[in-house]
Amino acid sequence: MRATVFHGPFDVRVEQVRDAALSEPTDALVRITHAAICGSDLWPYRGRDPFPPGGRLGHEWMGMVEEVGSQVSTIKRGDRVIAPFAISCGTCEFCRKGLYTNCLHGGVWGQGDNGGQAEAIRALFADSTLVVVPSSVEGDEARLQAILPLTDVMGTGHYAALLAGVHPGGTVAIVGDGAVGLCGVLAARRLGAERIILLGHQESRLSLGRRFGATDLVTSRGEQAEREVIELTKGGAESVMECVGSKESMETAIAIARPGGSIGYVGVPHGSEQINLLRLFFNHIALRGGGAPVRAFLSELLVDVLAGRLDPSAVLDLTVDLDGVPSGYAAMDQRKAMKVMVRP
Amino acid sequence: MRATVFHGPFDVRVEQVRDAALSEPTDALVRITHAAICGSDLWPYRGRDPFPPGGRLGHEWMGMVEEVGSQVSTIKRGDRVIAPFAISCGTCEFCRKGLYTNCLHGGVWGQGDNGGQAEAIRALFADSTLVVVPSSVEGDEARLQAILPLTDVMGTGHYAALLAGVHPGGTVAIVGDGAVGLCGVLAARRLGAERIILLGHQESRLSLGRRFGATDLVTSRGEQAEREVIELTKGGAESVMECVGSKESMETAIAIARPGGSIGYVGVPHGSEQINLLRLFFNHIALRGGGAPVRAFLSELLVDVLAGRLDPSAVLDLTVDLDGVPSGYAAMDQRKAMKVMVRP
Repeated sequence: MRATVFHGPFDVRVEQVRDAALSEPTDALVRITHAAICGSDLWPYRGRDPFPPGGRLGHEWMGMVEEVGSQVSTIKRGDRVIAPFAISCGTCEFCRKGLYTNCLHGGVWGQGDNGGQAEAIRALFADSTLVVVPSSVEGDEARLQAILPLTDVMGTGHYAALLAGVHPGGTVAIVGDGAVGLCGVLAARRLGAERIILLGHQESRLSLGRRFGATDLVTSRGEQAEREVIELTKGGAESVMECVGSKESMETAIAIARPGGSIGYVGVPHGSEQINLLRLFFNHIALRGGGAPVRAFLSELLVDVLAGRLDPSAVLDLTVDLDGVPSGYAAMDQRKAMKVMVRP
Repeated sequence: MRATVFHGPFDVRVEQVRDAALSEPTDALVRITHAAICGSDLWPYRGRDPFPPGGRLGHEWMGMVEEVGSQVSTIKRGDRVIAPFAISCGTCEFCRKGLYTNCLHGGVWGQGDNGGQAEAIRALFADSTLVVVPSSVEGDEARLQAILPLTDVMGTGHYAALLAGVHPGGTVAIVGDGAVGLCGVLAARRLGAERIILLGHQESRLSLGRRFGATDLVTSRGEQAEREVIELTKGGAESVMECVGSKESMETAIAIARPGGSIGYVGVPHGSEQINLLRLFFNHIALRGGGAPVRAFLSELLVDVLAGRLDPSAVLDLTVDLDGVPSGYAAMDQRKAMKVMVRP
């Protein structure tokens, strides 16, 4: 089969590899119909995160089950399944707590030889990791495209909103107009936030943010942006969602949080270890983050997508086939695309 | 009257000052019977925090009401009152949320000319700041000494426990064997923690910690201490209370927290702006801190002290009169005393 292989910074290739196959009795073999390139794939692509040459890429995918191991009981051949970006055994201490991204036996797709930007994949711990998508969606490409972001960015935006304590009638500021930030807007609106302030710099993304439910847009940078949010909120936002992971975005998040408020940060921190702890302390601002345990709320979000109440599909603004994956990475790197869908 | 005046690092004097008097109709004039020197008073004393020469010291105090302003309605002459370390107006946004230490009109005693290590004090916003102590305790010096730490250290230890998510049956690690850490042990036990691991270095304090309810003591430092807690808890404590405020104590707190756990930090951060955010992120560890809004739980804790269920008095291991205040500071600075009570 063909799969996306990392060779080094800015060098991603689609190559012939050994066919995916069942290995453990808890595995499923899945033919991938839809996958996506994640903003976090750009960290290794740009050489900012170490990644082993020869490693497979892709942790956002869904597809059709071709075969299941002898111990798989809730999933069968012919089912459409969607995977959260992290594998979860379902039985360890952290899975039992719903902290699936800390599964003691899991990991993220794309580590080793198991990437989702490929024709097929061996899905580990199929029962506890995968979620079955009702067959009613088959043929409805728009709905399938609305489901795909639940693998990661929509679940991650939702998690940021939960960590930031978004609640009905509340005020939230969202730092970052990438796919996660925009999904965060949807999540905040879904959780009932009354005022949703989106901070970003790209007009097309901000306009999508407005469509998704942002009530205010802040396009300036640094201290000027901070001043504007403080002014708009008369003292800071009670909920802040940090959806980038850079030093600057974390600084902004800390600066615009209201005393007693919460920051949810979901971008893997890059260079943001130096933080204004005194501001957090003197203003009783809670700092909570992590890789979203998407499996915990995938079913709940799927229900809303199926019912037409939630549709993050517009964050996918470029579609490529498997051969187009390298150009998809380049497009995202050069900000010509926000998020690329892959149809193998 | 006489009061404690800061002149510079290591130079604290008890001097004749203008008598405290009512100024606003919401004030009370209180004759101080008991006060204390706080570990945080040592930051300016040691020259590590800026403090204006001529400023008054002392934010932990209780006493007898001598006079009240025309708008004070819940407190009368002759009442014994206890003050939390922060003044709260009771009506601003943050007071209404119970975040009394962020009161828009308050502040901490000892700023300006209003310190508690003195013969008397002008108590601002008396109705919303002070709590009346039942007259049944008069003459019961042991009980009064058990009440005094509610002004700060006992309330602060309690807040650390709340922020760390201490719960019945839970496991908590407490970093720091000072008065706050030891009160944190009492608080954790009171909230039902089953396993209470105390990290510190001073034998007499640790032995008091054991008496207060610590189930395990860790006396090593740095990475060795971290390894021991990780081993004792098989992977980290779900609740961690950081009760020092130094870079080292924050590092330890972050290193010993269990995935999905919470750190409550209540020591004003000193030099700990560089934190291991990646560990917090990848382990979903919540970081929550602040100056304890003691007023929010002073009444609740007072009930327990009056009923004999809570007694933090042993953290007060040296008593001085007003003239002895400078020697009290020196004793705490040299670690000859843990916490000094002042009887003006």
